[in-house]
Amino acid sequence: MITPDRLSLNTATVSRQWNLEQAVEGCLRHGIGGIAPWRDKLHEAGVNAAARMIRDSGLQVSGLCRGGWYTAEGALTPSVIEDNERAVDEAVAIGAACLVMVVGGLGPDSKDLVSARDIVTQGLSKTLDYARTVNMPIAIEPLHPMYAADRACVNTTAQALDICDQLGTGIGVALDVYHIWWDPDIQTQIARAGKERLLAFHLCDWLVPTTDMLSDRGMMGDGVIDIPHYRSLVEAQGFDGLNEVEIFSAENWWKRDPDEVLQEIINRARQC
Amino acid sequence: MITPDRLSLNTATVSRQWNLEQAVEGCLRHGIGGIAPWRDKLHEAGVNAAARMIRDSGLQVSGLCRGGWYTAEGALTPSVIEDNERAVDEAVAIGAACLVMVVGGLGPDSKDLVSARDIVTQGLSKTLDYARTVNMPIAIEPLHPMYAADRACVNTTAQALDICDQLGTGIGVALDVYHIWWDPDIQTQIARAGKERLLAFHLCDWLVPTTDMLSDRGMMGDGVIDIPHYRSLVEAQGFDGLNEVEIFSAENWWKRDPDEVLQEIINRARQC
Repeated sequence: MITPDRLSLNTATVSRQWNLEQAVEGCLRHGIGGIAPWRDKLHEAGVNAAARMIRDSGLQVSGLCRGGWYTAEGALTPSVIEDNERAVDEAVAIGAACLVMVVGGLGPDSKDLVSARDIVTQGLSKTLDYARTVNMPIAIEPLHPMYAADRACVNTTAQALDICDQLGTGIGVALDVYHIWWDPDIQTQIARAGKERLLAFHLCDWLVPTTDMLSDRGMMGDGVIDIPHYRSLVEAQGFDGLNEVEIFSAENWWKRDPDEVLQEIINRARQC
Repeated sequence: MITPDRLSLNTATVSRQWNLEQAVEGCLRHGIGGIAPWRDKLHEAGVNAAARMIRDSGLQVSGLCRGGWYTAEGALTPSVIEDNERAVDEAVAIGAACLVMVVGGLGPDSKDLVSARDIVTQGLSKTLDYARTVNMPIAIEPLHPMYAADRACVNTTAQALDICDQLGTGIGVALDVYHIWWDPDIQTQIARAGKERLLAFHLCDWLVPTTDMLSDRGMMGDGVIDIPHYRSLVEAQGFDGLNEVEIFSAENWWKRDPDEVLQEIINRARQC
């Protein structure tokens, strides 16, 4: 059972309904312990105002979504590197537990996954150099293999940890049950990560059938992911961060009253 | 470059347009070297008649699709085991190079992936016992992780080879670029498989965006898979089987004149 104070609301879950201020107020109203904003919501509010708003709320910040997209221009360009440094600064400004990285997929007009993965590792290395100077942990989020082409070419926890091993301290993983639940190697890899590198843990569910690869995620309990199992694996390593709820749901949860969404998250989390 | 005689037509590619007889005649008309029927097409024609038709055609048979579905009833039942033995018999009857196994996903109302994988391994073991008596190679097809819930809980080549290691001789893998292209470990695993266990090699392409998880595969060249790269990996191990083309495409190729589809397959394969 997850109590509301152990939950964090990823703003993507109510992205169509609420701005950041409304999300912060919603979390407080429902007793949810933390928030994880996306950068567009920060920018909309203004980073300084957003940082003040979050600090004043007393909410924990389980992460900032998201840096990365290193392959967007086909090579590591100054603008990509600088944008990631700004993301680090923003994560610091709001007191985030980590900056979550969605690393980017294949470069434009490219079929070269090996090269994309090289670019990503180089980019993470540069961002990490900067993040270390301001003590912001970098969390690689391995994305489900169905996003390898267009969102992230880091697709398994093993692959993310290989990059962490290569780059050293200050970098770990953000694990979302949606992306990792299928992985036959996940138990071994969560143990390999260990407490220090388990920087974030995200919840939602995998619906059967899934009608849209991007925006048809389910509320916990509506799909087939054995969430208590994966939670027990990260907690066995000592993970004590919040359980962040991130649900992209164009046809269902994004269409509902967000107070109803938050109440349902709380109900479902009690059953996890 | 793949010449037509090195191609095999998986009947799924023209499943909406042609029965088995038409597919056999189509292959002969276009100089395609082999065919890989699905069982429904065999049953429709009658297995004995189909076997005769294929033998008389002189086409090679790169595989029979498909056995497996061990988890369909939540436990290994006699009917599941017997159906797989019938599939082995049918593969023998048509002179298939292997019986391709789509192993099944989670059991009904189950979230237990570990248990599903156990059932699958036990089921494969039983089918393999029978298949060895008639010398029919069993080919586990690791399916893309997006099918873990509802089609196959064997989702990586490493996982399939672990099962092969456990079960011994007579079993290997059928690798479809659609299912494996994202895998950061694929080069290592193809080398680990080696010629003896590389039983089939399937072609199509991954479209961006993919609008349907099941029936929106692309024609080779229309997506982002570096097909020559994966072909070179299997051929480096000595794989000399046919290049089997299996395209599920509800909104495009299934709606076209199948002779046009075959001609396009031949054109695209020359560029691979």
